[in-house]
Amino acid sequence: MYPLPIEKLINLFSKFPTVGPRTAARFVFYLMKLPIEESNTLIESIVELKTKIKFCSFCFKPSENDLCDICSDPSRDKSLLCIVEKETDLETIEKTKKYKGLYFILGGTVSKLREEDIEKLRVRELREMIKNFKEVIIAINPTTEGEATALYLERLLKPLNIKITRLGRGLPIGGELEYADEETLSSALDNRK
Amino acid sequence: MYPLPIEKLINLFSKFPTVGPRTAARFVFYLMKLPIEESNTLIESIVELKTKIKFCSFCFKPSENDLCDICSDPSRDKSLLCIVEKETDLETIEKTKKYKGLYFILGGTVSKLREEDIEKLRVRELREMIKNFKEVIIAINPTTEGEATALYLERLLKPLNIKITRLGRGLPIGGELEYADEETLSSALDNRK
Amino acid sequence: MYPLPIEKLINLFSKFPTVGPRTAARFVFYLMKLPIEESNTLIESIVELKTKIKFCSFCFKPSENDLCDICSDPSRDKSLLCIVEKETDLETIEKTKKYKGLYFILGGTVSKLREEDIEKLRVRELREMIKNFKEVIIAINPTTEGEATALYLERLLKPLNIKITRLGRGLPIGGELEYADEETLSSALDNRK
Amino acid sequence: MYPLPIEKLINLFSKFPTVGPRTAARFVFYLMKLPIEESNTLIESIVELKTKIKFCSFCFKPSENDLCDICSDPSRDKSLLCIVEKETDLETIEKTKKYKGLYFILGGTVSKLREEDIEKLRVRELREMIKNFKEVIIAINPTTEGEATALYLERLLKPLNIKITRLGRGLPIGGELEYADEETLSSALDNRK
Repeated sequence: MYPLPIEKLINLFSKFPTVGPRTAARFVFYLMKLPIEESNTLIESIVELKTKIKFCSFCFKPSENDLCDICSDPSRDKSLLCIVEKETDLETIEKTKKYKGLYFILGGTVSKLREEDIEKLRVRELREMIKNFKEVIIAINPTTEGEATALYLERLLKPLNIKITRLGRGLPIGGELEYADEETLSSALDNRK
Repeated sequence: MYPLPIEKLINLFSKFPTVGPRTAARFVFYLMKLPIEESNTLIESIVELKTKIKFCSFCFKPSENDLCDICSDPSRDKSLLCIVEKETDLETIEKTKKYKGLYFILGGTVSKLREEDIEKLRVRELREMIKNFKEVIIAINPTTEGEATALYLERLLKPLNIKITRLGRGLPIGGELEYADEETLSSALDNRK
Repeated sequence: MYPLPIEKLINLFSKFPTVGPRTAARFVFYLMKLPIEESNTLIESIVELKTKIKFCSFCFKPSENDLCDICSDPSRDKSLLCIVEKETDLETIEKTKKYKGLYFILGGTVSKLREEDIEKLRVRELREMIKNFKEVIIAINPTTEGEATALYLERLLKPLNIKITRLGRGLPIGGELEYADEETLSSALDNRK
Repeated sequence: MYPLPIEKLINLFSKFPTVGPRTAARFVFYLMKLPIEESNTLIESIVELKTKIKFCSFCFKPSENDLCDICSDPSRDKSLLCIVEKETDLETIEKTKKYKGLYFILGGTVSKLREEDIEKLRVRELREMIKNFKEVIIAINPTTEGEATALYLERLLKPLNIKITRLGRGLPIGGELEYADEETLSSALDNRK
């Protein structure tokens, strides 16, 4: 057993995503050896994060202002909305420099469509603001959970009579035909060019 | 050291694809424990393979006849050719039931476009028979080696003035945006529907 | 679907240890491309294995003679017996050049001590020949199945009043304390030197 | 690009052991969604760690007092010293409840015995306090780096005429003979019992 302040901090770090007790312990020993100025910088940065950064009131992207840099950018196409699961997915799409519309961060996926899961998603917010768009791209991961979520969104948005699209399927770079599933390969054949 | 007949057989099995000396040894002990009728069946099946099966004279698919079942099937679309790297890729595409044209098995990929690698491919055979097609789909794996091979084929076939296409890029089932490269994600956006 | 002779051979190779249908198919295509002399050499080597190699009548090691090279070696210590699970374990121990006694290949492990599993082991043969030894080393893998087998053997051999030992526990080369289980680490402390 | 306070925090978390930029970003988004009381608890715990916890003046174990709970425990055997690489290794050995002596946390390993690496270790401190022990157990991981460190320590401590031991080698639980190196297996044979 470690002294109580160490155990407490191991416990708190263990709640971080991807972190187990063993890694949490390594984090604590790292902090112990850190010069006091550096641990103070870390603390100040956490305080700064919690006070200066909020979620964009439109797309839920972390932002210093009420509207994030994308939502307030006049050059973005206001008729196109891309629904993603989480912040990092938005960043990944931005990096392609291919997409010029707006985003909406859903905040998760549903598994088995349980009421409690759906309530955690920002679905109400999504329905309210979606009416003004010409096309909505559902850019949820094509995993099992993501597929369930995408289907749920399609059903939800269908009555609004907006064009709804999904990301194209195909072979990723480095992929091999031999290990591709039939649906992926069918799409790759359809989308050949 | 094992007795000589065992060492000899370990050595031969070690040349099989994906097999190292340790696995080769396990194969030999498996054969030792096999009832004699079953090892005879194995031997007879290898003899049968080497005497009854040849490569289709058109597409190089293994076949009992001069022309394979696909090449001799009157219902297949004779204006469409799909170039694949190896037999199992052809089977994978067939399983999708999406493709109704003919095939050509290239027999490998080129790496670094060395003369000796290119000579191992059935490129001469390909050029001769390709003239009668309307579209050639290059269905080589989008790996580094496969890309080099596909580029080489595109350059080779361009002067023939046939439509040349490549399999579509996109997110495979189970894939995640976060780990997708930019080109794959760009294609997935382009091919949305 | 492949032509029948190919399907038959894929089926036979799929029964080889560690081989699934996909790898079995690659084996068949490898054989197809093999020059006929080389596939004949393979067949001859299998025939030679099945006719020339038998199991040593004492230790069950594959051998060209009734007694294998180890069992018939006058310089080996006939008072020491090492029980191993399979042929490759015997070879691994021989490579250390540390052990000068005889071996007994058990031919497998028991899981859950079911009657049918125990009957597959060469337990009867083991009991008969074991009486003349001073020490029996149970060198079964310290996996869950191996442990069950070792316990079973210990119970079986105890009434014979022979010294029974097990391989020492400890940290393997490249191992890390952090990931070692308590029993392994306790043994490593006990066996320090 | 994320807002500056986020980028700054991603950068700080990226320096944590085992954390890359992608995981660091997930940590930041986790903190953003954390209720303010919980992020305050985290900050207070870090402050508590940095103010209340120091390194034991004898063994360098994190401790609330000048001497840690082990070093100040009168029931521990003061003639036995166990040198470990890091805090978690000490905890792992404590969990076995097998060892009743004292510890010394070296604080790392040397690679290639470069001056600058050795200076980072607490070698000077070790030499000073070691004279009163009857046995010193070098419990450094048997990895390549660990071996180099252990050899270095052995040379360093030899002139002091104290019994120096190393953790025993052998098969770990779950290990398999087939994959064991020769030295490990030799030790397992030597340490049989």
